Amino acid sequence: MQYLKNFYQIKSNADIFAKISKEKETIGYYDLAFQDTSAIKEYAKTVRQQDIVVIGIGGSSLGTYAIHKFLQHKENKKKLHFLESTDPLDLERRVSKIDLNDTLFIIISKSGTTIETVSILKYLSSITTLNKSNTICITEHDSKLNDFAKANDMKTFEIPKNVGGRFSVFSTVGLVPLSIMGLDIDKILTGCKTIYTDYFEKGEYYKSIMEKARFMVENKNKFNINVIFSYSSLLEGFNKWYVQLWGESLGKININGTKQGLTPIGLIGPVDQHSFLQLIMEGKRDKTVTFIKVGDFENELTIPDISLPGLEELNYINNIKFKNIINEQADATIEAIEHIKDIPCDVITIEAQDEYNIGKLMYSYELLTSIVGSFVQINTYDQPGVEAGKIILKNKLKKTI
Amino acid sequence: MQYLKNFYQIKSNADIFAKISKEKETIGYYDLAFQDTSAIKEYAKTVRQQDIVVIGIGGSSLGTYAIHKFLQHKENKKKLHFLESTDPLDLERRVSKIDLNDTLFIIISKSGTTIETVSILKYLSSITTLNKSNTICITEHDSKLNDFAKANDMKTFEIPKNVGGRFSVFSTVGLVPLSIMGLDIDKILTGCKTIYTDYFEKGEYYKSIMEKARFMVENKNKFNINVIFSYSSLLEGFNKWYVQLWGESLGKININGTKQGLTPIGLIGPVDQHSFLQLIMEGKRDKTVTFIKVGDFENELTIPDISLPGLEELNYINNIKFKNIINEQADATIEAIEHIKDIPCDVITIEAQDEYNIGKLMYSYELLTSIVGSFVQINTYDQPGVEAGKIILKNKLKKTI
Repeated sequence: MQYLKNFYQIKSNADIFAKISKEKETIGYYDLAFQDTSAIKEYAKTVRQQDIVVIGIGGSSLGTYAIHKFLQHKENKKKLHFLESTDPLDLERRVSKIDLNDTLFIIISKSGTTIETVSILKYLSSITTLNKSNTICITEHDSKLNDFAKANDMKTFEIPKNVGGRFSVFSTVGLVPLSIMGLDIDKILTGCKTIYTDYFEKGEYYKSIMEKARFMVENKNKFNINVIFSYSSLLEGFNKWYVQLWGESLGKININGTKQGLTPIGLIGPVDQHSFLQLIMEGKRDKTVTFIKVGDFENELTIPDISLPGLEELNYINNIKFKNIINEQADATIEAIEHIKDIPCDVITIEAQDEYNIGKLMYSYELLTSIVGSFVQINTYDQPGVEAGKIILKNKLKKTI
Repeated sequence: MQYLKNFYQIKSNADIFAKISKEKETIGYYDLAFQDTSAIKEYAKTVRQQDIVVIGIGGSSLGTYAIHKFLQHKENKKKLHFLESTDPLDLERRVSKIDLNDTLFIIISKSGTTIETVSILKYLSSITTLNKSNTICITEHDSKLNDFAKANDMKTFEIPKNVGGRFSVFSTVGLVPLSIMGLDIDKILTGCKTIYTDYFEKGEYYKSIMEKARFMVENKNKFNINVIFSYSSLLEGFNKWYVQLWGESLGKININGTKQGLTPIGLIGPVDQHSFLQLIMEGKRDKTVTFIKVGDFENELTIPDISLPGLEELNYINNIKFKNIINEQADATIEAIEHIKDIPCDVITIEAQDEYNIGKLMYSYELLTSIVGSFVQINTYDQPGVEAGKIILKNKLKKTI
């Protein structure tokens, strides 16, 4: 009796490792950790404008927003804005906050023909002059957006063909705006390299990430929802980036024709303790939970030693630092969940709020996504499911006028 | 042979209707539609401050934020801020945007001892003077926060005991700040009344909401995830409010001891077309999807008739209004999903971006939550699952110093 080679979804760790190692030859994001950033840094130094506006949607903005949001306290005084939605009120409101005469516009689209991005580009062209002194483009070398840049003699940065949008944060897509904002992009990449080395040299990290991926895949039908519970408001952008990365990479029909898909959810503590936590604690056991804590918030804000009349019973919080409150809140929730025993959970602690650590965190999530995708035997890097809607939309719009 | 009366989870529509009608006698949110708002409106007229700061978390802020975000274009020139998280960097950044000398602080806590709220209250007390001229409290009549208000001679508004936090948006919790911001709170309540009347007088709405609730409950094990896909960035707050309402109300152990729980997810189109949509289209069939569209955006922003060199192939979007682009994007996604046939979906169209319609939408979601909760035989209005964590936290904090 013979079995089809691909019948078993869950292969050995060694098989997966071999597949990922092989995949590195064609999938571009792995090597971004080792790129030369000198051209980006040189350019960033020359930017004089105070408002920096990223025009891009999905993978063209989520990763940049995630790092910006987390490291805003380390940035220079420039202001970073994002234009992505075609919602007219929202768009007008965002544009009203920009000084159009002191702005660098960064148009980002991998394909170069993203409808939201081109719509906004046209709108901006009608209210200001876009030219080589205030606009750059980040796109594939042979895209229509690249043609636009060339026709206007605008500077361009290239997105390699083999780096997908949702895996592009460590390419020029993320590094150019983040370098302009004064962040140390080399330290970000050092974080990536650490994960790369730990994994591919089969250190400690190899075992833990394989174990995590394997658990998620083996239990995917029972625990079809993966929650990230981040205990810092500043990880809100990271959560959104994770939702795209996980959802769009893993929501696929696999090699055996079955529909895969682990559903990502991003929560922020302590706010979502007052919202979603009840569902985790007493709801159906269909979720794994990953807590993310910031080890040291680099902030000493403290609850003052004040006794408020009527509220004396809460004096026990006096003199506690806010960073300790939020971390104790995380620990209390983790302890309560561990006590229940049948909710699988793990904890990631980010040592510091800096470039190195956010690089590590995000690169490790890219790697985890690749490993899980490999386990369930899908193409982690395409997104065929959204094409049908795009064609319908194009036909609708062509009929609109 | 006899069966226990409660064995069957799914009762008849008539049974559920009777239960909900009976429930109205003890659960307070239903009647908020009919309250007298004159005291709130009178007070709102007297507020002179330019910055309005809501200090509250979970149900004390999410509903207000949802309506504010959706109707900001109808508000006066005051600025509404929200302080809720104990994340120190986030808190400092938010406070830095407030003019402390021209601010009305609204402290909101149903229990009066919410740890985040009292922490922030103490912090504010150390950087400015809180007194009866710049601070009001919204709380239960016999809470510790009410004692605090009395001790300082501050104005208070009451949250009725039988109105739960996540069902409190139409109580003083939401109406006081929204009225101060210049919104017509009576029109909001008229929206609520419309739903109330349609449902309890068994009009057309009765059938459709019962059918929706029944479908969700009957298929809860197959479709354990309920997605709301809102096609307007301005519904971001509504999505968050929905996640709390749905998750915290329905994530419960029911009368038969089984863990219930439909998992809410809020998405924003078109941004999440570039993120989560792939997972809906090709992922596991474990989701129902409700699309929310804005019928008329009250905004005429149009893509200009500009041909950009290199991007000529996108000239077909010229002269189309942004509001039509976003609605065509919604329709294209809906059509693509309907074409697949095995993803249950429905569409809610909000006729206009005004008080009446947001009142209708949110009240109808409260009602849907109550009906689903009644079907699965849980207590929709408590949150016992978060108590364990609170006790652990209190013990940890008492040991911290």
